[in-house]
Amino acid sequence: MTIATDLENRFAEREAQLLDDLFAFLRIPSVSAKAEHNADTQRAAAWVHGRFEKMGFTVETCPTPGHPVVLAEWRKAPAGAPTFLVYGHYDVQPAEPLNLWTSPAFEPTIRDGKLFARGSVDDKGQLFAHIAALETMLEVRGKLPVNVIVIAEGEEEVGSENLAPFIEKHKKRLACDGVVISDSSMFAPGIPSILSSLRGLAYFEINVRGPAQDLHSGSYGGAVVNPAMALARILATMHDANGKIMIDGFYDDVLPFPPDVIAGMRKLPFDEENFRKEVGATSLGGEPQFTVLEKLWTRPTCEVNGLLSGYTGEGAKTVLPGVSMAKVSCRLVPKQDPAKIEALMKAHVAKVAPKGVQVTVTHLHGGKPWRADLEGPLFEAAKKALAAAFGRAPEVTGEGGSIPVVGDFERILGVPVLLMGFGLPGENAHAPDEWMSVDNFKLGMRAIAALFEELGAGGVS
Amino acid sequence: MTIATDLENRFAEREAQLLDDLFAFLRIPSVSAKAEHNADTQRAAAWVHGRFEKMGFTVETCPTPGHPVVLAEWRKAPAGAPTFLVYGHYDVQPAEPLNLWTSPAFEPTIRDGKLFARGSVDDKGQLFAHIAALETMLEVRGKLPVNVIVIAEGEEEVGSENLAPFIEKHKKRLACDGVVISDSSMFAPGIPSILSSLRGLAYFEINVRGPAQDLHSGSYGGAVVNPAMALARILATMHDANGKIMIDGFYDDVLPFPPDVIAGMRKLPFDEENFRKEVGATSLGGEPQFTVLEKLWTRPTCEVNGLLSGYTGEGAKTVLPGVSMAKVSCRLVPKQDPAKIEALMKAHVAKVAPKGVQVTVTHLHGGKPWRADLEGPLFEAAKKALAAAFGRAPEVTGEGGSIPVVGDFERILGVPVLLMGFGLPGENAHAPDEWMSVDNFKLGMRAIAALFEELGAGGVS
Repeated sequence: MTIATDLENRFAEREAQLLDDLFAFLRIPSVSAKAEHNADTQRAAAWVHGRFEKMGFTVETCPTPGHPVVLAEWRKAPAGAPTFLVYGHYDVQPAEPLNLWTSPAFEPTIRDGKLFARGSVDDKGQLFAHIAALETMLEVRGKLPVNVIVIAEGEEEVGSENLAPFIEKHKKRLACDGVVISDSSMFAPGIPSILSSLRGLAYFEINVRGPAQDLHSGSYGGAVVNPAMALARILATMHDANGKIMIDGFYDDVLPFPPDVIAGMRKLPFDEENFRKEVGATSLGGEPQFTVLEKLWTRPTCEVNGLLSGYTGEGAKTVLPGVSMAKVSCRLVPKQDPAKIEALMKAHVAKVAPKGVQVTVTHLHGGKPWRADLEGPLFEAAKKALAAAFGRAPEVTGEGGSIPVVGDFERILGVPVLLMGFGLPGENAHAPDEWMSVDNFKLGMRAIAALFEELGAGGVS
Repeated sequence: MTIATDLENRFAEREAQLLDDLFAFLRIPSVSAKAEHNADTQRAAAWVHGRFEKMGFTVETCPTPGHPVVLAEWRKAPAGAPTFLVYGHYDVQPAEPLNLWTSPAFEPTIRDGKLFARGSVDDKGQLFAHIAALETMLEVRGKLPVNVIVIAEGEEEVGSENLAPFIEKHKKRLACDGVVISDSSMFAPGIPSILSSLRGLAYFEINVRGPAQDLHSGSYGGAVVNPAMALARILATMHDANGKIMIDGFYDDVLPFPPDVIAGMRKLPFDEENFRKEVGATSLGGEPQFTVLEKLWTRPTCEVNGLLSGYTGEGAKTVLPGVSMAKVSCRLVPKQDPAKIEALMKAHVAKVAPKGVQVTVTHLHGGKPWRADLEGPLFEAAKKALAAAFGRAPEVTGEGGSIPVVGDFERILGVPVLLMGFGLPGENAHAPDEWMSVDNFKLGMRAIAALFEELGAGGVS
């Protein structure tokens, strides 16, 4: 299979304009976590709505208790043609710390073939690759080879709380033959990838309250339990010295990956020393009996995501803080369940919390881990389409991050989910200087078009 | 001993006028921390200068790189009479937050026997008690029983940086038989107190660097050492479960307090349950074998003053932080030395720091602990004078905080320092609604006069 000439020519003509359009999308600071950006988040939804409307989709911006879901449908494929659902998200992570961005987070800039902007790769750039593919096919051919439903949500970065209820509610309308999601990364530049597993998540906030207010550390220190020190002691109980998680029952539901999948992972061209250098750490961590890829793709974690207590400005202030806070999250692997991990975490913290402080654990959000069935026409079509666009057969990879909705789609709609992403390692998805490879954006939209062509030709129903 | 009748009568006559004069002093907003108040701070220095000049002292306002030191001297005591140095400060803390003051911070008001104003107790009211005592003695008798040097500085609330160099520079001129400072509190209403110990300080910032930047906790978590978790593990090694500090050698230089001082502390009317309620904690902490007062006054500490890492805003951000920071400070007791504690802290952190992160410990500032020699004519005289004024023998107390200049006077001038303060618990020295007991002001000036009488009669040289 190769990319059809009519499409290829039109992609080549439109590329510059499409990048300009993506820039406009990226300039909208649709930070879903921050109420001060609510108007921007709405503006991003309206932008997506308008784009699909213009290309002839039937579009609805559906309110939720949080940010709206944009639902776009094109159902004019020949009778008997299958229907595929594309999922993406128009919201982005907070951009802080702003001073660490080389160019402003919401002013897209291309340097060395990389498009820098908050949301460039996660996920506006990848969502827009689908928009660009569908739009170009409609422009050139006046029609699509399959029926397409697009769901663009605005709460992926805050846990997609309202998406599963939305899918559930519109289950019939969303009936399809498979779901396609581009919100992940390729294994390496030039190696297109099909992502076959995701870790789940259980994200907590731990709050420790000691004295009723901040105290003078001289006048009170030594007789009052320090809530920042108490928090440190609680956190330090969560692992042993080898990185094993010490929360009772934490590993009980872990289902080992099949030996052939592990064997495949070990064959991937992966240089752990390169990874260390890229990360910039003096040495790597985690349980020593696993390779880095196994640690990232097949093992659960317990990480501190944030710490705050007392005085954090310049110089010295002799305060004994009244409160302390940690954000702590666990990545989960099949078949760990966030609700069960929540119970285990709460029991553990209650067990180890020192006297003299009051500790609360709040489960901010969770998502189940996921593992794909690696057979069937959707995966076969994806392999061909990726090979056509990138000139190389794709690899099957895993992912340490979470896309909770993947499991939801699979479970509610009862169809396979294809994760075909165009990010790259080091893309800084949740950090300053997030970027997307401009080449991957261009090849990605071609691969997406090829996928729909193949799915239309093959007939999956 | 009782207050001499001639002095007592004149104090009684002058009381109302003296309070009026103190009001005028308190109305000057001499906030040393704020450049916008520089003219006010100078005005307060001039006010003190003028007052001493009027009562016949030789006065000099000595410039420093910051706010000036007012140096007043009266050296006409009979040959062989001893010389004492009185230290106080004319600068005050900022008054913010202004909206929490019941009456304006710089408009002194008496309610329920309390004089409310910024600086009322810290330290203008106490410095003025010395002025009132010396002035009244000179008025009634035309002379003082001892030679008196007064140092009133204007930078106590910003760290007294220029004071030790000033004392050093004028060492010969300031030669004396003892230093008297009223800038502390009595143990409780009606219980005059001699403050016999202060804790020292060694204040650190611990910085942990892991990956070169913040990473996605999903994509990298499990294979990279988390610097926030590493910091928690480092901090958790600093105490055992009973609150004992586990830094090697930390207690080596601790010189136990004399058994009679400890016995005295245990006899003080102190209700630990009341203290717990005032603090607002569910239970108290620290090493169980010590009473609260022993923990606060006689034991060193290791406290977290601040924590910062990763994402600390609303909701969830799945970041693996690149760095983490803790402010950690140790209160020190005799004969611990901040420089040695710095070395021990650095060695400890280096020993326990996990692989995969780089940890630096910076010593931000330190001050030595101090303990009075509770013998000698200065303390004997103070006991008599306080008993005469308050009708009750004073208690010997300690203090958990630090007043670095105390050690400076003792070290540079080689003489004992007497801390005889007239504040009270709950006086809000650095908070809104600062107050000084009007009774303590009145009894304090009598005690000061009695002290000089006793010192003149006893002859300390």
